[in-house]
Amino acid sequence: MKLNRIINDPDLVVEDAIEGYVAAHPELFAKTDHERVLKYPAIPQKGKVGIVTGGGSGHEPAFLGYVGKNMVDAVAIGEIFSSPTAGAFLDAMKASDGGAGVACLYGNYAGDNMNVKMAVKKAAAAGITVKTVVANDDVASAPITEREKRRGVAGEILMWKVGGAAAAAGYDLDGVIAAAQKAIDNCRSIGVGLSSCIIPAVGHPNFNIDNGMMEVGIGHHGEPGINVVPLQPAKEMAHTMLEPILKEGIFEAGSEVVVLVSGLGATPTMELYIYYAEVDRILKEKGVKVHRSYVGNYFTSLEMMGVTLSMMKLDDELKKLVDAPVHSLGMVQG
Amino acid sequence: MKLNRIINDPDLVVEDAIEGYVAAHPELFAKTDHERVLKYPAIPQKGKVGIVTGGGSGHEPAFLGYVGKNMVDAVAIGEIFSSPTAGAFLDAMKASDGGAGVACLYGNYAGDNMNVKMAVKKAAAAGITVKTVVANDDVASAPITEREKRRGVAGEILMWKVGGAAAAAGYDLDGVIAAAQKAIDNCRSIGVGLSSCIIPAVGHPNFNIDNGMMEVGIGHHGEPGINVVPLQPAKEMAHTMLEPILKEGIFEAGSEVVVLVSGLGATPTMELYIYYAEVDRILKEKGVKVHRSYVGNYFTSLEMMGVTLSMMKLDDELKKLVDAPVHSLGMVQG
Repeated sequence: MKLNRIINDPDLVVEDAIEGYVAAHPELFAKTDHERVLKYPAIPQKGKVGIVTGGGSGHEPAFLGYVGKNMVDAVAIGEIFSSPTAGAFLDAMKASDGGAGVACLYGNYAGDNMNVKMAVKKAAAAGITVKTVVANDDVASAPITEREKRRGVAGEILMWKVGGAAAAAGYDLDGVIAAAQKAIDNCRSIGVGLSSCIIPAVGHPNFNIDNGMMEVGIGHHGEPGINVVPLQPAKEMAHTMLEPILKEGIFEAGSEVVVLVSGLGATPTMELYIYYAEVDRILKEKGVKVHRSYVGNYFTSLEMMGVTLSMMKLDDELKKLVDAPVHSLGMVQG
Repeated sequence: MKLNRIINDPDLVVEDAIEGYVAAHPELFAKTDHERVLKYPAIPQKGKVGIVTGGGSGHEPAFLGYVGKNMVDAVAIGEIFSSPTAGAFLDAMKASDGGAGVACLYGNYAGDNMNVKMAVKKAAAAGITVKTVVANDDVASAPITEREKRRGVAGEILMWKVGGAAAAAGYDLDGVIAAAQKAIDNCRSIGVGLSSCIIPAVGHPNFNIDNGMMEVGIGHHGEPGINVVPLQPAKEMAHTMLEPILKEGIFEAGSEVVVLVSGLGATPTMELYIYYAEVDRILKEKGVKVHRSYVGNYFTSLEMMGVTLSMMKLDDELKKLVDAPVHSLGMVQG
């Protein structure tokens, strides 16, 4: 199996895509001296905490699609499904530093952890204070007792939204970090994979899901899930995915939540809404109130079929920050 | 080949998806007495021209994703790849009539033409003046000498944007119709298909594209294109698609244009940007100025792989209307 793709050179897909992003949206993206770092043109903004993230490519609109007004200031861009370099993270930190320090809000993967850690050290040596929040919202990747092992998935978007809004509202670095940490602490996610994807430079499927089967708890790069089961109707799939999330015990009756349903790339939008309808129904039955919902391709894995469900419990502060205006490719709110 | 899908019943995908849209976005969608008609909650608006569209499902976010503020007021929703009924079009017209008449802006397909025509007659009998614009932006579907045979494709989005902004700006019915007609007269589109899709209730691919091949000029429902050729690199594909568009003679050096690149559903976003970079480069060489660009899944065909390119030439009026604020699922501008 080899996919028909719209590319030039499979080894240059990231470079070529970056050219397209910058050409299409000059109001959102400015190049920097580092070819794998893009920044929001209006930054650094003096006195504002800088917001940095980064990660592997292939998850578009994540990560670079969340660069924008009141969200991420600069992004370090990795190869497909690979961490950006420490140098890219460092240059993103430098690009976004307006003198008030930088919050690096990223996902819990070995490569990212290592490279961010190195970049934070080098930034400190250059006089820039960087503090970090590591997203670990994927309930399927480890038990709650080992939360530090859990992967960061689409809940990262809500962390960026909250952190970005806090920085825009004038929070200091510790305040931004606390808000972003609270966002991810109150967030839980899980994914279901229905088909694999093919990394262009590799040319064969990353993994395999048989016809008629689905993998519950699959990661954004095809990391193994909890189990592989026969494909369920949307209604049952919603139950299967909500169960481990609700078991965490943070979403009680009366809670107000944000729900984010993301396709993994190739699942038609209408299926995401069919799925959302079931999630919404179950949450209503449980007395959990959906304050705001996002449904679409927010965090993908090339052309995988499947869906991820993320939920964040709100308090007054998180609600205000989630509701704040934002302008990025992946998320626009007036 | 059978796809792993996120659905309940293949015969109820449209009903189930509508439930999801309404549940997820109550600020954008209100139900009406007709189960296949959704409307923007704040309409009818007294004295404003109503904007109606409709079409088959499976093209999400089109058509219902363009219901919103300053865009489409009410939408008639068909089965997958099938026209809505005349009754649905009629009820959408009734729902959006604020006394200033209704502009029905839709795509050139036999079923839609027939059903809209019937609905317009019945609306007139009910005292509602409805005028129509039929989108026919697809250059691959007939020669310019038979423009009335050309299909409407993603250029419809720009027609809705312009018509919706005109209505919001207080244009009367003839003014809205003239603006929407000007938008589509200045718009040209073409698509390339890289793989087929599967209608859930049918269960087998709609058509076939061999591995390593691409179909130039394919329609949104797999209608045959101009020819099937070996898959081209993005750079060459941009040339192949721009050539018939530029040959129409309306995009000269010095023109200002809107470019809309839409994926057909399963093509990863990064490939759309790789493609856009090439289009942008060629237009720069030709001296055509891109005023605004849209890149993403704006008008899809379930999980087809491929891309469509739409270009609209701007004058001062179209530029103002395109730049106006809009809030819908498919398009948000501040």
